[in-house]
Amino acid sequence: MLKEEIYAQGKLAKRAARILAGLSVTEKDQALLAMAEALIANKDSIIDENKKDLVEGEKNGLSKAMADRLMLNDQRVEAMAEGLRKLVALADPVGKTEVMFKRPNGLEVGKVRVPLGTVGMIYEARPNVTVDAAGICIKTGNAVILRGGSTAFHSNIILSNVIAEAAVKAGLPEGCIQLIQTTDREAVNILFTMNQYLDVLIPRGGAGLIQSVVNNSTVPVIETGTGVCHAYVDAEADLQMAVDIVNNGKSQRPSVCNALETVLVHQDVAERFYPMLEEVFKEKNVLIRACEESSKFLTKSEAATEEDYSTEYLDYIITGKVVRDIDEAMDHIAEYGTHHSDVIITKSYDQARKFLAGVDSAAVYVNASTRFTDGEMFGFGAEIGISTQKLHARGPMGLEELTTYKYVIYGSGQIRG
Amino acid sequence: MLKEEIYAQGKLAKRAARILAGLSVTEKDQALLAMAEALIANKDSIIDENKKDLVEGEKNGLSKAMADRLMLNDQRVEAMAEGLRKLVALADPVGKTEVMFKRPNGLEVGKVRVPLGTVGMIYEARPNVTVDAAGICIKTGNAVILRGGSTAFHSNIILSNVIAEAAVKAGLPEGCIQLIQTTDREAVNILFTMNQYLDVLIPRGGAGLIQSVVNNSTVPVIETGTGVCHAYVDAEADLQMAVDIVNNGKSQRPSVCNALETVLVHQDVAERFYPMLEEVFKEKNVLIRACEESSKFLTKSEAATEEDYSTEYLDYIITGKVVRDIDEAMDHIAEYGTHHSDVIITKSYDQARKFLAGVDSAAVYVNASTRFTDGEMFGFGAEIGISTQKLHARGPMGLEELTTYKYVIYGSGQIRG
Repeated sequence: MLKEEIYAQGKLAKRAARILAGLSVTEKDQALLAMAEALIANKDSIIDENKKDLVEGEKNGLSKAMADRLMLNDQRVEAMAEGLRKLVALADPVGKTEVMFKRPNGLEVGKVRVPLGTVGMIYEARPNVTVDAAGICIKTGNAVILRGGSTAFHSNIILSNVIAEAAVKAGLPEGCIQLIQTTDREAVNILFTMNQYLDVLIPRGGAGLIQSVVNNSTVPVIETGTGVCHAYVDAEADLQMAVDIVNNGKSQRPSVCNALETVLVHQDVAERFYPMLEEVFKEKNVLIRACEESSKFLTKSEAATEEDYSTEYLDYIITGKVVRDIDEAMDHIAEYGTHHSDVIITKSYDQARKFLAGVDSAAVYVNASTRFTDGEMFGFGAEIGISTQKLHARGPMGLEELTTYKYVIYGSGQIRG
Repeated sequence: MLKEEIYAQGKLAKRAARILAGLSVTEKDQALLAMAEALIANKDSIIDENKKDLVEGEKNGLSKAMADRLMLNDQRVEAMAEGLRKLVALADPVGKTEVMFKRPNGLEVGKVRVPLGTVGMIYEARPNVTVDAAGICIKTGNAVILRGGSTAFHSNIILSNVIAEAAVKAGLPEGCIQLIQTTDREAVNILFTMNQYLDVLIPRGGAGLIQSVVNNSTVPVIETGTGVCHAYVDAEADLQMAVDIVNNGKSQRPSVCNALETVLVHQDVAERFYPMLEEVFKEKNVLIRACEESSKFLTKSEAATEEDYSTEYLDYIITGKVVRDIDEAMDHIAEYGTHHSDVIITKSYDQARKFLAGVDSAAVYVNASTRFTDGEMFGFGAEIGISTQKLHARGPMGLEELTTYKYVIYGSGQIRG
């Protein structure tokens, strides 16, 4: 019965997607503005429903940090509404002809951007993802089926109801925004194989959630988020800059995927670099898990295990390793990294070029914090997630990454000989 | 033990991919030329090995058509070599900076084309795919692991050995081209979950093979091939043109994915159109499975079942259905199609525009045969397959579709506040 319900939602979404694909940007933008208004108009009920989640969370022993991520107040609801309004200012990628060419037989072939169709979002914790994801999907002409975490159950229901109703009132098709309104885990399994109604599944959350989607979904997946990011401090680095970039990457916000997890230090500068790093890390209470060589230059550290090298701590912990040269650093990144974001700190033109060419990650930096791997920081205006796979999209995914293309071919009776 | 062997191949491929990514187009092109030469030099042994497959095929009751697809002779080996040489003339997409922009904080962000990494190809029958796929992968700097069908077992072994050896001799890394050298079906299951070494799996073959890969692979898949393609004959069609396009789409080569499977005929022209179509189809022995309304205008037809509407016949059979108008035609295509290739035949500007906008397929045509959905016909110079999914690539996939991008970011010490 659950399967039938979710398939009915899928069918409705698919139907909505066909209509959405034909809407003008004005029609979509007006819906986004109406959705924003509706959030503001329903602010009190939204906060009331959110309180239910917070109370249940407390009962179930939700951590303070998690409760804070879950909590909605006036300001946060307004921020969600503002996020929708900001989408209006962005250019719509749909309908753009990327290239058009004429074949010798007279056929004219155009490659035109179109929406993906129906997007499934599976996410955890933060209720703002409900609104953010729905907004980006509507702007790009996609129908969306949302499956939020059980901790934000009541919040997600009211948020999706409010924006979906507003969207439909503004002229968008029924079913353009839908939430799976059950905490039954079976619902996710049903989404995994609903290929006839879903064009893509995007998981957002912890490594466990993402791995489960990748392993079990027959619907194409865009893998997001897991980031074991590295900084390589080259022999020719400006060491103060290196300290600043490593400190920023690790401690400015450790819980996110573009935070640093490992620092690789060239053997020639380890003795000077580590004490400088230790000094700033003391203030931030960052623990260093060090290789044997690194530990010689630190007053305090734990011994790094093989497992640490591939661990996304998401915490005030960093792995430190001394490397012989840039090649060992790049080999280490290839072996233990997740192809997310990695940086070299160097003054050497040649080493910078070598690192940019040789590291196979979504974002490869010279002399800047990996924390910039982010749709807003890249100037995309909106972001649905950060892809760590290579198909379709890589790195921060903005509006264009929620579209695909089709070929339109203008003929005059051509047949193949 | 099979798993260990294949994982060893995967590891070698991954290592090769890192080296391939850094090669210049000249180095890759020289290897392609060497591979072509080696094919010619080993022509006789290749044909001898192919004979083993033909003999075994005969024992196992291989159909004459299949045996013909399997057979290699002088001309066919030369054609494979020529295919490799043709790749040299094509531009290398790798290394192209698609866009580069400067952020307010001074960061310069570039989006650069890079190889996908390691490509897994699972395919059936024709041994030329071994050479074609390897050639395209090498040109785009990808390592490739090939898994061919058991009917071409001996042919695939010698072909892959000859080209892999030539490639390595020409300076390419060991493991850049590898074949899974066993007919054990378990090998495919191992490839399905070898995520740490494979960046993408591309199946090429029948619907059963493709479905199996989509359902079982946790490695990202590019779905190729299944085509239930439609022609819609509009009320304002040039009926002679419609007959020519439908005839070409169905009978020029029925065994391929871009062949037509269904003709939808506007009610106002069915009475005139069907007899014209029947006349040309008589010559070609095309059977029409007709809806009740259609059968009234045909002297000979079978009754179409619901199942026929979603069947890829790959044969001299076509479904015929009368529709009320273009909307019913587009609804039918959305319901039963595979989003491959569909065509409207019309003289109406408005109907043409409506069809192009409203049909969500990889290739949407006005007044031309769907048989043009093909890398060569589109002028791509080479093709690894025709994608029927929406992520990453849609329609004919050429060189660029075997690449992804990464962001390279040039900073001067920027950190996030």
